[in-house]
Amino acid sequence: MSKMIKPDLAVPTDGRQSDRALEIQRGTMRHLRQRGFASIPEVTLKSGRRADLLAINAKGEIWIVEIKSSLEDFRADQKWPDYRDFCDRFFFATNHETSAEIFPEEAGFIIADSHGAEELRSAPEHKLPAARRKAVTLLFAKSAANRLHDVMDPGVPSRLGPDR
Amino acid sequence: MSKMIKPDLAVPTDGRQSDRALEIQRGTMRHLRQRGFASIPEVTLKSGRRADLLAINAKGEIWIVEIKSSLEDFRADQKWPDYRDFCDRFFFATNHETSAEIFPEEAGFIIADSHGAEELRSAPEHKLPAARRKAVTLLFAKSAANRLHDVMDPGVPSRLGPDR
Repeated sequence: MSKMIKPDLAVPTDGRQSDRALEIQRGTMRHLRQRGFASIPEVTLKSGRRADLLAINAKGEIWIVEIKSSLEDFRADQKWPDYRDFCDRFFFATNHETSAEIFPEEAGFIIADSHGAEELRSAPEHKLPAARRKAVTLLFAKSAANRLHDVMDPGVPSRLGPDR
Repeated sequence: MSKMIKPDLAVPTDGRQSDRALEIQRGTMRHLRQRGFASIPEVTLKSGRRADLLAINAKGEIWIVEIKSSLEDFRADQKWPDYRDFCDRFFFATNHETSAEIFPEEAGFIIADSHGAEELRSAPEHKLPAARRKAVTLLFAKSAANRLHDVMDPGVPSRLGPDR
């Protein structure tokens, strides 16, 4: 039994993401893992907005990373400050082709390629209130486990509830 | 891109589990999902013992299910009460071939096959202290997300830390 399965078999991409965005996602997830953060992509928050990456570490600190693969991609997002209500630190991640100057100083900044990433600017901390931290932590836990379950058991009586 | 990948490609079984145990695992995980619990198999707790299934629901309630596929399997485990220190409710799960009488009344009891399961006896509640609950919740979150990450990106610079 081999663990070396092709990523394109394992990841149910939703067609909305460009290859460039997926490369940034991959490198950023590797970077987060090295920093002690477990992360999952595409998590719908209580506000209805989707976080590109939601990450948590052993202390329970929660980060959100928004992936912007182009200037246009960044300009289309006027509501990024809203993500701060759901994390302790907020970052943008992009690639070397996108100009660093367009990203706001108030957010952390990550440059990634498909192999890894570098944190060029750390993000200011804005600690979550306890109730919100609990809710986001449980959302993270259930989303990660249910997605893993879907991979382990594709026959799972499908999608029992919205907890993915 | 198909999501219907074979489970045996996706699940890195460790060779210690019998086919019967895996059937009970599958049915029990489906049942837990229907009950609003996300679950992951084979999680090593702080005590060093491995929980066969660790499960959590939207309220943060934590369950542990130990899978016993035979009488011998149950008899070999003298330390099951220790699991109570890591969950709010504790269950045994077995199949129809194993006699229900051997399982202690003080634990919940589940009968499973590979398609689903039934909760024949609910488990008494012993609420976790807050600090332990937080630790187990974060262990669950990181384990689930890092295993999903390993499936998504088999090239992840391997196994960065013990957080699986």
